[in-house]
Amino acid sequence: MTLSTTSRAELAEFAAHHRSDFERWLARLVNIPSVSVDPARATDVRRCAEAGLDCLTQVGARGELLETGGHPLIHARLSDVPTWPTITVYNHLDVQPADGDDWRTDPFQLTTHGDRYIGRGATDDKGPALTALFGALAARSADVPINVNFLWELEEEVGSHHFEDALLRNRDSLKRTDAIVVSDTVWVTRGKPSSPAGLRGMQPFVLTLRTATTDLHSGITGGVVRNPLAELMQVVCACVEARSGRVLIPGFYDDVEPLTPAEEQAFRESGFSLETFKRDHQVASLRETDPLEVMRRLWAMPTFEVHGVVGGYTGPGVKAAIPPRAEVKLSCRLVPNMTCQKTFDRIRAFIMDRFPDVEVHAEPGLEPFKGRTSGPLADAVRAAYRFGFGSEAVFTREGGSIGAVPTMERILGKPVVFLGLSLPEHGYHAPNEFFDWEQAEGGIAAFAHFFAQLAQQPAG
Amino acid sequence: MTLSTTSRAELAEFAAHHRSDFERWLARLVNIPSVSVDPARATDVRRCAEAGLDCLTQVGARGELLETGGHPLIHARLSDVPTWPTITVYNHLDVQPADGDDWRTDPFQLTTHGDRYIGRGATDDKGPALTALFGALAARSADVPINVNFLWELEEEVGSHHFEDALLRNRDSLKRTDAIVVSDTVWVTRGKPSSPAGLRGMQPFVLTLRTATTDLHSGITGGVVRNPLAELMQVVCACVEARSGRVLIPGFYDDVEPLTPAEEQAFRESGFSLETFKRDHQVASLRETDPLEVMRRLWAMPTFEVHGVVGGYTGPGVKAAIPPRAEVKLSCRLVPNMTCQKTFDRIRAFIMDRFPDVEVHAEPGLEPFKGRTSGPLADAVRAAYRFGFGSEAVFTREGGSIGAVPTMERILGKPVVFLGLSLPEHGYHAPNEFFDWEQAEGGIAAFAHFFAQLAQQPAG
Repeated sequence: MTLSTTSRAELAEFAAHHRSDFERWLARLVNIPSVSVDPARATDVRRCAEAGLDCLTQVGARGELLETGGHPLIHARLSDVPTWPTITVYNHLDVQPADGDDWRTDPFQLTTHGDRYIGRGATDDKGPALTALFGALAARSADVPINVNFLWELEEEVGSHHFEDALLRNRDSLKRTDAIVVSDTVWVTRGKPSSPAGLRGMQPFVLTLRTATTDLHSGITGGVVRNPLAELMQVVCACVEARSGRVLIPGFYDDVEPLTPAEEQAFRESGFSLETFKRDHQVASLRETDPLEVMRRLWAMPTFEVHGVVGGYTGPGVKAAIPPRAEVKLSCRLVPNMTCQKTFDRIRAFIMDRFPDVEVHAEPGLEPFKGRTSGPLADAVRAAYRFGFGSEAVFTREGGSIGAVPTMERILGKPVVFLGLSLPEHGYHAPNEFFDWEQAEGGIAAFAHFFAQLAQQPAG
Repeated sequence: MTLSTTSRAELAEFAAHHRSDFERWLARLVNIPSVSVDPARATDVRRCAEAGLDCLTQVGARGELLETGGHPLIHARLSDVPTWPTITVYNHLDVQPADGDDWRTDPFQLTTHGDRYIGRGATDDKGPALTALFGALAARSADVPINVNFLWELEEEVGSHHFEDALLRNRDSLKRTDAIVVSDTVWVTRGKPSSPAGLRGMQPFVLTLRTATTDLHSGITGGVVRNPLAELMQVVCACVEARSGRVLIPGFYDDVEPLTPAEEQAFRESGFSLETFKRDHQVASLRETDPLEVMRRLWAMPTFEVHGVVGGYTGPGVKAAIPPRAEVKLSCRLVPNMTCQKTFDRIRAFIMDRFPDVEVHAEPGLEPFKGRTSGPLADAVRAAYRFGFGSEAVFTREGGSIGAVPTMERILGKPVVFLGLSLPEHGYHAPNEFFDWEQAEGGIAAFAHFFAQLAQQPAG
């Protein structure tokens, strides 16, 4: 008997039947510490890539590891029928470090606790990757005429620096897809599916000022010699009002599109709670407390943040020398319609005009991404969430940046949508990270339904 | 035949006769690396104290090491006749570290190069200490009826933290003096003796702000959560205009006495050169270029400096996390008539009023010192310099702080004057530090004459 992707009960049965496979494979992936930022874990990252490819191969997908200048990229095709539409599923199998004493279990040994799967990478992003894979297997069991490509990255947590180059070198093959679905985002709250219609970008940069050649004695020279730490602080204060976060650089907000009434309405319906936000991030006081304004600032407004200062004395007490050089590390998050280059040019021009001997140096940036909230792909996302979770999805935005997303849309020329499954309480990047069966089970059904939708209608 | 302290020629002969002793003793002291800041050098610091006491004992002084909670203090009396006046000479035998590759000779092996004596501590302050000692020996040879006490510290370079306590515990003995002469200051230029009529004090303090409990993701939370680094920068910018150094705290300058016309005139005659200052400190651009205003800022105006920042990321590139806590290390130099407590209270009140959740913490401060430019002691300094160096002395100020000076005046209740012998080119705290025979020879004559003056007239 063939599975039907329109029967939620049959999908539930499919998921229940495959639950032990899902758990076994999740354990296999989580138990490999694929910490991409740690050079000592490079072998583990490769082992994880091989294990991921092996999972795909075992279910009949054909693929390979694409070598890059860094960690490899997994690419595999589950069926490859020229007359069928093709969808590419993007996930990543590398993980954040799991240092510190706050883990109550071994982060690299999957612990199952009722419906919870606890371990580093369980929700970011190994659990969602396998959920999408089982969704594709369900679609295949239902004879859905669609080709599913899997593109599993192993450098997402370190900025996807080799991803663009890997796409360019394999473009001919990777372009054979009609759309891309990314499952690496977090709902605003449980029971309320949300899909980002935009991601913020990021432009990191560094300010440097040298005013002398060696440490100067603050008694013998103080009052007359310049102080590069204090002067760079003045530069920062000219750029941003720190308590409110308001950026003072003329034109900085010019390219920010105001939210449409529909977008504002979606934000209001997203299930965002200020109390939950404060609890999740353990913060008592905020720059803003009006919930809609908080969401606007998190998802739809750019930022200007200081991340660190180099120069001077940092030991105990005070050593009263005046340093010869100082450096401030900063970044801006960007929203759709802004660009890294234009933003950086504006900042640099502002600073160089007022503080001519300050050096302004850009680090590699990530462009913002504006997604779609209408059309067949967005409709398929809505229908998939409704089918899988019995609840209407909301199109919000994501405050973070996924470097791979604008890169895929630009290089492959195909639209990207998001079918994320993680929840705030799952703890992205946090100790005791977990994924849960409720999200996996609903996700398998949602993905199966999503593939079935796209098989019937052109994507885009 | 008895030496005459009014004949410069006889003093020159005395100095020439004792030159080899001076050089031998200077080598003995310089060759001991009495680096007081380095715990690994504690034994060397004590060896140096013992060697210093041995020099004093060899010439007939009677004394001992006064133990403190840190390095010992040398105290010795050269003659002790109750009916004679007594003068205490303060110097220090501890030295700065001599790290780095810029030394052309072994810093702890005195190198004699013509009239130059090269080594760490040669000018700061072992050479001047021995010069004063040979001056006292000359006075004794001239039968000058004066008792000379030597107080040689071994913690000057680390803030004299145990000095006050040592004075208190030995107050009865140390109070048996009529005045104190300090030889640990630097002339403005060679050939132009200068004596500071004031020292700046210093009040170090630390600002701390905590806004969260852990690092926050600048994408997921950025724009809404507070940034403690940026906010502390705003605090600093509210306190000081960094490029000019102007302090913006109301009342900060209220207690600063304007220079008198006589003081301004002394500054003008001091031999200060902006070009020399820039060359000595290797600085190209300054906050101020008018020479008189530069001197005023260095010697007679308070400062507000940033020395370091703790919190956030300081590695290569930019890591875009928002830190939960930041700390800024600062200090103010104070001028006579200001006090540490009043200055700190004013700063703290200003900050707490505007930035209520910023913590303001004071570190131990050093009070400023206002000396005398008239009266018998100042006149004796003038006469001594004129006799020793054939040139009129100028009373300027010192931008640095010598913690021991206000402490001695307060605890012993006796006036302090300065008979310094070092030159800017000698390189206080710098590589290739040296002292020279011209300053030593003139200094021996000057000290002998100084003691003779004080034997004839009451001090104070």
